[in-house]
Amino acid sequence: MRLLLLNPNTSQELTDRLSAVAEQAKAPDTTITAVTAPRGFAYISSRAEAEIAGAIALEMIAERVESCDAVVIAAFADPGLKAARELFDIPVVGMAEAALLTACMLGERFGIVTFTPRLTPWYFEAVQSAGLAERFAGFRTPPAAQGDIGDVAERMAEELGALTAQMAKDDGADVVILGGAPVAGLAARLRSGAHSAVLLDPVSAAVKQAEALATVAPQGASHGSYARPPGKASQGLPRALAQWIVDGPSGG
Amino acid sequence: MRLLLLNPNTSQELTDRLSAVAEQAKAPDTTITAVTAPRGFAYISSRAEAEIAGAIALEMIAERVESCDAVVIAAFADPGLKAARELFDIPVVGMAEAALLTACMLGERFGIVTFTPRLTPWYFEAVQSAGLAERFAGFRTPPAAQGDIGDVAERMAEELGALTAQMAKDDGADVVILGGAPVAGLAARLRSGAHSAVLLDPVSAAVKQAEALATVAPQGASHGSYARPPGKASQGLPRALAQWIVDGPSGG
Amino acid sequence: MRLLLLNPNTSQELTDRLSAVAEQAKAPDTTITAVTAPRGFAYISSRAEAEIAGAIALEMIAERVESCDAVVIAAFADPGLKAARELFDIPVVGMAEAALLTACMLGERFGIVTFTPRLTPWYFEAVQSAGLAERFAGFRTPPAAQGDIGDVAERMAEELGALTAQMAKDDGADVVILGGAPVAGLAARLRSGAHSAVLLDPVSAAVKQAEALATVAPQGASHGSYARPPGKASQGLPRALAQWIVDGPSGG
Amino acid sequence: MRLLLLNPNTSQELTDRLSAVAEQAKAPDTTITAVTAPRGFAYISSRAEAEIAGAIALEMIAERVESCDAVVIAAFADPGLKAARELFDIPVVGMAEAALLTACMLGERFGIVTFTPRLTPWYFEAVQSAGLAERFAGFRTPPAAQGDIGDVAERMAEELGALTAQMAKDDGADVVILGGAPVAGLAARLRSGAHSAVLLDPVSAAVKQAEALATVAPQGASHGSYARPPGKASQGLPRALAQWIVDGPSGG
Amino acid sequence: MRLLLLNPNTSQELTDRLSAVAEQAKAPDTTITAVTAPRGFAYISSRAEAEIAGAIALEMIAERVESCDAVVIAAFADPGLKAARELFDIPVVGMAEAALLTACMLGERFGIVTFTPRLTPWYFEAVQSAGLAERFAGFRTPPAAQGDIGDVAERMAEELGALTAQMAKDDGADVVILGGAPVAGLAARLRSGAHSAVLLDPVSAAVKQAEALATVAPQGASHGSYARPPGKASQGLPRALAQWIVDGPSGG
Amino acid sequence: MRLLLLNPNTSQELTDRLSAVAEQAKAPDTTITAVTAPRGFAYISSRAEAEIAGAIALEMIAERVESCDAVVIAAFADPGLKAARELFDIPVVGMAEAALLTACMLGERFGIVTFTPRLTPWYFEAVQSAGLAERFAGFRTPPAAQGDIGDVAERMAEELGALTAQMAKDDGADVVILGGAPVAGLAARLRSGAHSAVLLDPVSAAVKQAEALATVAPQGASHGSYARPPGKASQGLPRALAQWIVDGPSGG
Repeated sequence: MRLLLLNPNTSQELTDRLSAVAEQAKAPDTTITAVTAPRGFAYISSRAEAEIAGAIALEMIAERVESCDAVVIAAFADPGLKAARELFDIPVVGMAEAALLTACMLGERFGIVTFTPRLTPWYFEAVQSAGLAERFAGFRTPPAAQGDIGDVAERMAEELGALTAQMAKDDGADVVILGGAPVAGLAARLRSGAHSAVLLDPVSAAVKQAEALATVAPQGASHGSYARPPGKASQGLPRALAQWIVDGPSGG
Repeated sequence: MRLLLLNPNTSQELTDRLSAVAEQAKAPDTTITAVTAPRGFAYISSRAEAEIAGAIALEMIAERVESCDAVVIAAFADPGLKAARELFDIPVVGMAEAALLTACMLGERFGIVTFTPRLTPWYFEAVQSAGLAERFAGFRTPPAAQGDIGDVAERMAEELGALTAQMAKDDGADVVILGGAPVAGLAARLRSGAHSAVLLDPVSAAVKQAEALATVAPQGASHGSYARPPGKASQGLPRALAQWIVDGPSGG
Repeated sequence: MRLLLLNPNTSQELTDRLSAVAEQAKAPDTTITAVTAPRGFAYISSRAEAEIAGAIALEMIAERVESCDAVVIAAFADPGLKAARELFDIPVVGMAEAALLTACMLGERFGIVTFTPRLTPWYFEAVQSAGLAERFAGFRTPPAAQGDIGDVAERMAEELGALTAQMAKDDGADVVILGGAPVAGLAARLRSGAHSAVLLDPVSAAVKQAEALATVAPQGASHGSYARPPGKASQGLPRALAQWIVDGPSGG
Repeated sequence: MRLLLLNPNTSQELTDRLSAVAEQAKAPDTTITAVTAPRGFAYISSRAEAEIAGAIALEMIAERVESCDAVVIAAFADPGLKAARELFDIPVVGMAEAALLTACMLGERFGIVTFTPRLTPWYFEAVQSAGLAERFAGFRTPPAAQGDIGDVAERMAEELGALTAQMAKDDGADVVILGGAPVAGLAARLRSGAHSAVLLDPVSAAVKQAEALATVAPQGASHGSYARPPGKASQGLPRALAQWIVDGPSGG
Repeated sequence: MRLLLLNPNTSQELTDRLSAVAEQAKAPDTTITAVTAPRGFAYISSRAEAEIAGAIALEMIAERVESCDAVVIAAFADPGLKAARELFDIPVVGMAEAALLTACMLGERFGIVTFTPRLTPWYFEAVQSAGLAERFAGFRTPPAAQGDIGDVAERMAEELGALTAQMAKDDGADVVILGGAPVAGLAARLRSGAHSAVLLDPVSAAVKQAEALATVAPQGASHGSYARPPGKASQGLPRALAQWIVDGPSGG
Repeated sequence: MRLLLLNPNTSQELTDRLSAVAEQAKAPDTTITAVTAPRGFAYISSRAEAEIAGAIALEMIAERVESCDAVVIAAFADPGLKAARELFDIPVVGMAEAALLTACMLGERFGIVTFTPRLTPWYFEAVQSAGLAERFAGFRTPPAAQGDIGDVAERMAEELGALTAQMAKDDGADVVILGGAPVAGLAARLRSGAHSAVLLDPVSAAVKQAEALATVAPQGASHGSYARPPGKASQGLPRALAQWIVDGPSGG
């Protein structure tokens, strides 16, 4: 299975981190192509940035859809996820959604630990969009964002581990998702310590869910409200996306 | 009060229709500037098109924010609404959200009548986003989209009136919202007939809500999760938007 | 537009306060008539008192409905609101409901700060009645009611300001409503300080919503479950109300 | 146990019907005193009438509270129920609430069959107030109210039986409540036929719940948000109610 | 009325405690037969143990159903309750469900105080199953289970009383249910102290609800989704249960 | 990965069908051991039968837990699922839950088509237990169960296909799950026709989810409310289960 691991941020360093984690989770017969956004923000951290990045994610998929079998949108609150599902007839998976749904099989309630409070309102929209708010045990974050995101996983590992333990103890979370692309892979490292919740890594969850969908529904979300819209002309959009929208794969 | 009536579609004809309805609803001391999207789609009719148009709406506001007091995003499911609220510190109102909230003061349950079934899943996301799903009486639409949207309000007036009457009779709707920019103003015409629900026009509702917010909260959604994000560099975005994001009004 | 500002409490001092705030919020062409309950309680502060005051509010409207275009019921949890909507075919707005709905356009979650814990269970019923419980961030109040309500806005301004700041910081509220008629107008004064939530004044919100409804739906909630009930005889009710119920405006 | 069966309607005929059904359901050691509203409406059939009747119910209880151990408010959507619970420290039960809660032990989902569509929006508020909307299978009623309510139970028995059968078959209702005081006792008669749902009589349910509360919590809803409000002066209220509110039983 | 008080635990000591409390709550004409599980666990304290005990409860009822008029399953989260309702056509009541529904008539929100945190996730499933999660004020428990359950009611009375007071003060609970069979009867003792919530004993509530159902619906949950399943052969089940399932009472 | 495919029914024919479908969905390095219940019912079709089968499923796992890496409980409404997750520290997946969660990535709303109306109330409990009721589009079934379940997939294929098409057209379902073990594998066959919803096979979904969990959380639901209960003595339980409960793997 050919998986497109799409980083909607412009940071190549982040793509490398995501890619390394994804390679460890994938099945033997999955090949992963990791791509980095050509424009936008080094790291999305607001609703407005996600709105812009969502449109960029569509452009990135349009350029590559005919050479992949499934897509993972690798930013935690899943920019462009529903739009991509509608436009492309292969499985499209978001890191947040995949983690939330996977968590439902590992406990009754799940929470999210992340490295800055700034992101939580945007992340919460992903919880609501999945319809899982009543199983959500809340967020735990440091009081404020701190420094560069490049090494946040290493620098804040201990603090995030402590937040995880607090969440398990006080918030009734059976599962803790470590949210945010910059902390991809951290779950595995914290797991070796003694924490009283199942720790879940969103990139790994997304890779496995993409593989699952590629088996049980290779055309992805392709019917009903996700049926591909009729072809339509546009003005001023990037060429590959405009062409895909006007006439789809047969127009190639 | 200087109101920016933002049409995120590229159809000038649609802007003219929206503008005419808005002029009738506005207070004497409100002035309305209507603008049309410079790129994108003639008429947004899918989640993917809305994702793209939402980013374009942000660009359009960034170019004009310093000369207006409030914004109405004049496409029914409110593309870019939350992102715009976060980025700009003036009231930003969406046609769908304004109609839904206004409807809550005119009855217990409200429904939406529109001219094509294609749009309803996207519209429903606006209902959910407002948190009002339990007061929602559902949709009524013709079985399929029919022809050009330019004259849909005139051509389908009778059919939409009949759907409204059915919704009032069978779905328990006290209020019926006539959803979709192409039918702006139709509520007033249908109202003269005998229908057993309050008919609500979303453009009119949005104009009045923008005026209300400009009085009670002139800085709009400006705190908490909608506090303006810190300045941030970007690559490849339109100049006005990139500049606004990097340093806001003071950078002008 | 002729607005009836109805104080269902018997305190003239409270009517004066409400009226002063309403005058500041109204549009130039709105005229406000403020009336005080002729019987009942100086200040409603329980469910039982609200039940009684709701019936009195109906009497007060029945006496004046033919000389006004819209009504604001100016007690925070909106006694008699639904009954009034059913009985009278002009817009009827409640202070709490108007504030809650307006808050939805100024943030994702809103909370209520008020001057006594006694009132919160009754206020919460207004949140639930609007169907907005999932966007509600809770209450913050002083530990107990303190002294006379006449000067509570002045006496407790600092304490309520501190509660507002706490709510913004700890409860995830983007918007804080200052609930309760005795603190009408306080939002504007606190706003000049540095608080990290949008502050919302319910009287101002109610006046603007009444003006909005008078434009978009001058007959108010007049259909479906709010259609006016058939005329009906009664025993022992105040004359104006009994007459309105038996034969409505045409019977005058 | 001395039970006050309070009919908030002015129809003595209705009181007699309610009383006859209650007598059949009561335990041997329960004595029932049935009282009829001294003013108001022959039969409450709108939100506005219920608002007025709720205040009258409080007056009726205030006159008799010291000679009874529990109260049943015998109108289906429970006018004045919460206010009465707050004001009086004995169990107070409503016909609708008692039926809804009892139904929860007789099936997964329950519906309501009643004799006119007019009443359903008001009845639905009782379902929501109990927090049981997700277990509610809806209403079935004749298309319009028909004639006098005095003999509606007899006249419409067959039609209501057919609606019950339809509800069981098509709406997923395990239990059907026969709502509305005028059809009190009808459940027992329909039960002898072959209907595929458990039929529940609200008066009987209310009597049994009043007896249950009198055993397990003789002081009723007496704490927290239902703690009795502090004494308070009033103007223009009926003497017994005003006195109860100002100083309660000790003031007698 | 012949009531079967079914203890799905194997502890006779617990049966004796439950029986003593039930005897105090019952009506004069109710006779109670208390039975103890012949196999399983001394005291159920996990989901897995409840799963096993639920099947055992069915066996226990099958052996006695023809000599009783109603059943109380006397373990707090009601193991086997829905299955028993489906299989037997007499009222079947669970201690937790009965307490939750009764609490709804004694306040707006209710909480549960119990003697160990271990049980709360399982208990919460009973709250959700009743559809009452939005009225639930949460749990208060000691930090860890302590010692033998045989004398927990006596040993921890003071601590549980303090937790009850905290719940009333800080969690907005109008009613506190003392959950768990080992603390049956404790509510009555704590009640004599000064606590600011209505205290509710689940065994007493269950007995009264069983009596109520025996009057208003002697066949219990007998229709719709709770209609008795068609007879069916089985392998390896206890004889009385297998026979009941294959051919019911007529097969005896 | 060694997967235990556990059929809690006693029908070997059904095990063979489930096994054949599972073999097609599994990854190359997964080995599947399919086991059939040694006692209970040929085919579970009621809540009571599921209660009994849930306890039997625990016995079946206890006998084999040390030689497998994950378990699929292969009956559609997942008897014993939560109890098994609590008791065993490997991933345990249910057919219904796995299908519901997978469906959430293939559309906005999903429905269930099955071969008999009898099962739907029990199936609905699985939807509620997952917290996904608001995304559920309902059931479509033939009017009554028909004949033997052994060949129901073949015999009713056309009818179930027609129900699927109706659900897609009228109920707003983007995804249709073919529920019930006897129709395992049917989704793949119907998929070749023209149906306007994504068709989902629960056994395939369960196998893929078990594989996903084995990668991202090999210890399964092992913390918080699913932490393994302390060892406990029991009476009269099957030997392997009793021993597992008293002292777990180390006791072997």
